[in-house]
Amino acid sequence: MNRKIRVGIVGYGNLGKGTVAAIGQCPDMELVAIFTRREPESIAVQNPSVKVLHISEAEAYTGEIDVMILCGGSATDLPEQGPAFARLFNTVDSYDTHAKIPEYFQVVDNAAKEGGKTSIISVGWDPGLFSINRLMAEAILPNGENYTFWGKGLSQGHSDAVRRVKGVKGGVQYTVPMEEAIKRVRSGENPQLTTAEKHQRICYVVAEEGYDRSKIEQDIVTMPNYFADYDTVVHFITEEELKANHSKLPHGGFVIRGGKTGEAHHQVIEFSLKLDSNPEFTASVLVAYARAAYRLHLEGQTGAKTVFEVAPVYLSPKSAEELRKELL
Amino acid sequence: MNRKIRVGIVGYGNLGKGTVAAIGQCPDMELVAIFTRREPESIAVQNPSVKVLHISEAEAYTGEIDVMILCGGSATDLPEQGPAFARLFNTVDSYDTHAKIPEYFQVVDNAAKEGGKTSIISVGWDPGLFSINRLMAEAILPNGENYTFWGKGLSQGHSDAVRRVKGVKGGVQYTVPMEEAIKRVRSGENPQLTTAEKHQRICYVVAEEGYDRSKIEQDIVTMPNYFADYDTVVHFITEEELKANHSKLPHGGFVIRGGKTGEAHHQVIEFSLKLDSNPEFTASVLVAYARAAYRLHLEGQTGAKTVFEVAPVYLSPKSAEELRKELL
Repeated sequence: MNRKIRVGIVGYGNLGKGTVAAIGQCPDMELVAIFTRREPESIAVQNPSVKVLHISEAEAYTGEIDVMILCGGSATDLPEQGPAFARLFNTVDSYDTHAKIPEYFQVVDNAAKEGGKTSIISVGWDPGLFSINRLMAEAILPNGENYTFWGKGLSQGHSDAVRRVKGVKGGVQYTVPMEEAIKRVRSGENPQLTTAEKHQRICYVVAEEGYDRSKIEQDIVTMPNYFADYDTVVHFITEEELKANHSKLPHGGFVIRGGKTGEAHHQVIEFSLKLDSNPEFTASVLVAYARAAYRLHLEGQTGAKTVFEVAPVYLSPKSAEELRKELL
Repeated sequence: MNRKIRVGIVGYGNLGKGTVAAIGQCPDMELVAIFTRREPESIAVQNPSVKVLHISEAEAYTGEIDVMILCGGSATDLPEQGPAFARLFNTVDSYDTHAKIPEYFQVVDNAAKEGGKTSIISVGWDPGLFSINRLMAEAILPNGENYTFWGKGLSQGHSDAVRRVKGVKGGVQYTVPMEEAIKRVRSGENPQLTTAEKHQRICYVVAEEGYDRSKIEQDIVTMPNYFADYDTVVHFITEEELKANHSKLPHGGFVIRGGKTGEAHHQVIEFSLKLDSNPEFTASVLVAYARAAYRLHLEGQTGAKTVFEVAPVYLSPKSAEELRKELL
C-alpha cells in the first residue's frame, strides 16, 4: 500500500465533524489538521490528537496536505473559499445552490487550473449521488421521466423560515414525500407532478407565551415560496418535546425514473437514501470523492470536476483488479 | 451536433432485438447493420430498412462502424467474439460469468490494445448498474454490508434446469426475493444471510401426460446447486396457462447497503430495478455504454474497461455544461 492520503478540513460545523468521523473509517487516509475561522482554542475536538489551526495558517500546509475538504456553507463560505483554496490545494466541496452551480464551476475551474490542482465541486447526495442517478437513468431510458423526492427529512432552510415567524420560540420543519405520489411514480405511470404535489411540509413549533397560535399557524402556512404552495401542517409542542424528539438531522429521498423500451415495456430505476444523520452521510460522500480528487490529480487531470466526471473506480480504496473480482 | 455514432450489432436474439429498439430511441446514433451467424435471409427484422449481414462480412465494416454491440451469450459466444471483435472495433458486451470476468477482461484488453480500440465489458445491470452501486455504497460507507437481491424475475438458467427434469414438458422459474429479508436489511440491522435465505424459487411446470407429478416435484426441489438449498415451490399448470401468463421476461432486484457513521447513525443506500423486459433493459444499458466506448476511444483511452472505469458524463448525449445546469 502507498502512503496515506493526507487530508485537511476547512470549517468545523456539523459537516466538518462528520468529516472527521468519516476519515476515521478510512485506513488509507490521515487527517492532518482542521482549519477554522474561529479561535482554534475554542474548538473542542473529540480526539485530542487532531490539530486545530486558524484558517490563515492553511497556506503554509500546501506541501503537507494532498486534498482539502471544504465544509463551509454555500451561501457565503464556499463562493469565497472554493476558488481561494482551489488555487492552492486539491479540494472537494458540497456547494449546493443549484442555480449558481455553472457560475461556481467556472470560478473554481479557473482557480484550480491556475494552481495546477484538481477540485470536485457539489459533492454530496443532492447535488451528488442523486444527480448521478438522474443522469444515468435518463441516458439509459431516454423515453421516460425523472422524479426526485426529498425526505422524510429535516430541512434546514425551511426550519430557519419557521423560526423567523413572530411568536415562534423554536421549531423544525420536515419535508415528507407523499406516499400516493411515490406509488404513482413507481407504477410507471409517469404523472405530471409539481414539487408541491410530491411533498408535504410538517412543522413542529414552540410558541412564545402569550402569542396567538392560530395567527402563528396562519403566518407559516401562507408564507410565500416556503409554504404557501404546499400542504403544510403545523403542530405546536413544548420546548422539552422539541429538544427530546427533534434535535437529530435525519434526511433522505428517492430518485425514480420510469421509462418505456421496445413496444411498451415499463422499466423503473430507483435510488433511495434513508439517513439517520444527513451531515455525517454527506461527509462520507465528500471523503470518498476526496480520494478521487487526489487520484485524478496524480494522473494530471486538473481543473474543476463534478461527480459526473468521476469514474466509480476512483472512489474506492481497492484496486481496479480487486474491484473487478469482488464487486463486478 | 456532430455526426451520428454509427453502431453495429452482433447477434440477433432477445438482446439483439432489444438493442435495435434502444438505438431507435437515441437521436445521436444510427444502426449500420446487424451481423448474424445464421442465414441473413432467415432473420426477420421489424424495420425492413435495417441491413442484416453474415458475421463473416463484419471485418469489411471497420471503417463504417464506430462501435459494435456484442449481443451473444457468455457461455460460448463472447469468449470467442469478445477478443475477435475488440481487435477490429470499439465494443461493448454483457459478459456475465462473474467468476471468469478477470480472465475475460485480460484477453479483451490485450486484443483491444493490439487494435488500438476501446472495449467496455460486462455491461448491463448485474454485472453493471448493480456493480456500480455496490462499489459506490462500499466506498461511501466503509463500515457496513452490501446485500444484493434478485427478482422478482424469470431466471433463464433455472428455467432451463426445470425443463431438463424428466416428465417436464415446459416450465419457467421465478427468483423471488424474500420480503422479510429485505425488511431486515432495510432496517439497517445488517443480518447474515445466504443467497438461499434471501430468495425463494417458484416454478410453473407443465407435466407430460402420464408422469407422476409428485415425482417431478421431488426431482426439482432436490436438484443440487439449483434448488436443493432453496425454499422451492412447484406449481403445475396447463400448457395454455404457461403460454398466456409466463412468456414475458420480467426481472429486477435490489442492491442495499446498510452502514454506520459517527457514533452509531444508521445510513441506508438502496438501488432497485423493476423491469418488464430484462433483455430490453440490458440492451438500453449497452447502448448508453456504446456511446461511452466511442467517446473514450475519441479521447485515446484504449483497451478494456468495465463500468467502474466509465465516468457518468460519457453515457449521456448531453454536454457536460448542459448536465451541470439541468441534472446536477
